[in-house]
Amino acid sequence: MLTQADLKRIRALQQKKFRAETKRFLVQGRKVVEELLGSAWQTEMILASQEGAAFIQQAATTRKVPVHVLPEHELDRVGTFEKGNELVAIAVIPDQPKFRAPAGNELVLALDGIADPRNMGGLLRIADWFGVRQVICSQDCMEVYNPKCVQSTMGSLFRVQVRYARLYDELPQCVAAGASLYFADMGGAPVFDVELKRPAVLVLGSESHGLSEAVRGLAEATVVSIPRLGKAESLNVAMAAAALCTEFARQGRK
Amino acid sequence: MLTQADLKRIRALQQKKFRAETKRFLVQGRKVVEELLGSAWQTEMILASQEGAAFIQQAATTRKVPVHVLPEHELDRVGTFEKGNELVAIAVIPDQPKFRAPAGNELVLALDGIADPRNMGGLLRIADWFGVRQVICSQDCMEVYNPKCVQSTMGSLFRVQVRYARLYDELPQCVAAGASLYFADMGGAPVFDVELKRPAVLVLGSESHGLSEAVRGLAEATVVSIPRLGKAESLNVAMAAAALCTEFARQGRK
Repeated sequence: MLTQADLKRIRALQQKKFRAETKRFLVQGRKVVEELLGSAWQTEMILASQEGAAFIQQAATTRKVPVHVLPEHELDRVGTFEKGNELVAIAVIPDQPKFRAPAGNELVLALDGIADPRNMGGLLRIADWFGVRQVICSQDCMEVYNPKCVQSTMGSLFRVQVRYARLYDELPQCVAAGASLYFADMGGAPVFDVELKRPAVLVLGSESHGLSEAVRGLAEATVVSIPRLGKAESLNVAMAAAALCTEFARQGRK
Repeated sequence: MLTQADLKRIRALQQKKFRAETKRFLVQGRKVVEELLGSAWQTEMILASQEGAAFIQQAATTRKVPVHVLPEHELDRVGTFEKGNELVAIAVIPDQPKFRAPAGNELVLALDGIADPRNMGGLLRIADWFGVRQVICSQDCMEVYNPKCVQSTMGSLFRVQVRYARLYDELPQCVAAGASLYFADMGGAPVFDVELKRPAVLVLGSESHGLSEAVRGLAEATVVSIPRLGKAESLNVAMAAAALCTEFARQGRK
């Protein structure tokens, strides 16, 4: 049985401060909880409605994760969905992966100051689609364990390694190890005209401010843009990532 | 002076039913209201905080749009933002554009059952970026005048023509007029291997169900996909559109 104190502790995981303190975060909804249990990530427990429990029981039993059935009004207090909080898992935040320079044919994404949780989650989903296994985030990027971000990854969070670091320290290390550096910026050369070499790091800046001064100051980069044929002032950063990763994928085909 | 009855009528525009009845909708925030006033779309009035009014006054005066300054607690009642409802414009919903088959080098997007307002708005923004001037939506697509959708377009709503119609009626008309039809579907040929002809209609399906049966049944289409190099189960529809429009843009270059 869960006590009211337990539920209070779980509810507190809606806040970044308590996630950092307890190294736990919330994973919600059928799709993403299923992906969690299918991954190597640790799950402490699952809170579920009767229906949610019926859906997840088998996978939870296989992974030896306890499932607690709760009435809906209590699930609504711990979950963050506007409606339909039928599955809320408490998962363990893993240690940050170590720095590793991209090698061989690898494409790495570096994110600089991404503030919107849905964009952040969408970027991990794009990374996962295009076979990017490592994402380096500046320390002012949105925390990936934010519930909206977790949800937007649709499970890609459990497959892509995310590291928070000083980009102006680690990007030069990537270059020193032989990687080509590409900055996404509207002032850059049309990406179709650029020969995209591998291994590579593609750096994307914040929605409102673009790349930070410290990153922009790194001299070794090629600046690439997505040709604008219409009149929109900008693309959002996740759309820009999808567009640029598409061209990386095309040029990277054997 | 606005009466309480006026404010109630404006607040009702948060709901689709009242937007349809009155042919009015809400446009909010500096960026999008500025784009509205810079467009040919009609604006009935603007409600603003002191600061919002100072920001928009010149553009509003040029367009002869009255600006009513309201206290913040009243703006919070009419606006839909969680915070910072400093500018709320009431704009006029234009008549739906007539059917027009794509011609020459044109790329048209067709959207089938898009349910999420942010995706819908993002799709219009992508259309606008890539020079798509016409978007044909199935009648069960999210209404573009939904406040979240309007916001996600970042003003592209005022530049892209949106038409709601039966896709299974109008897509064959596009084909009859000489357009090539492309369906986005994970089972399709890698888009990089397909010669993308123009004029063209690119059809994107709903986030959860893909293309509807009625559309899928149209025989004349080439099915294209974005090669998946990683393990994400899907891309969201706006990301898929960004990826496919990128390849259309690349192949369409002179």
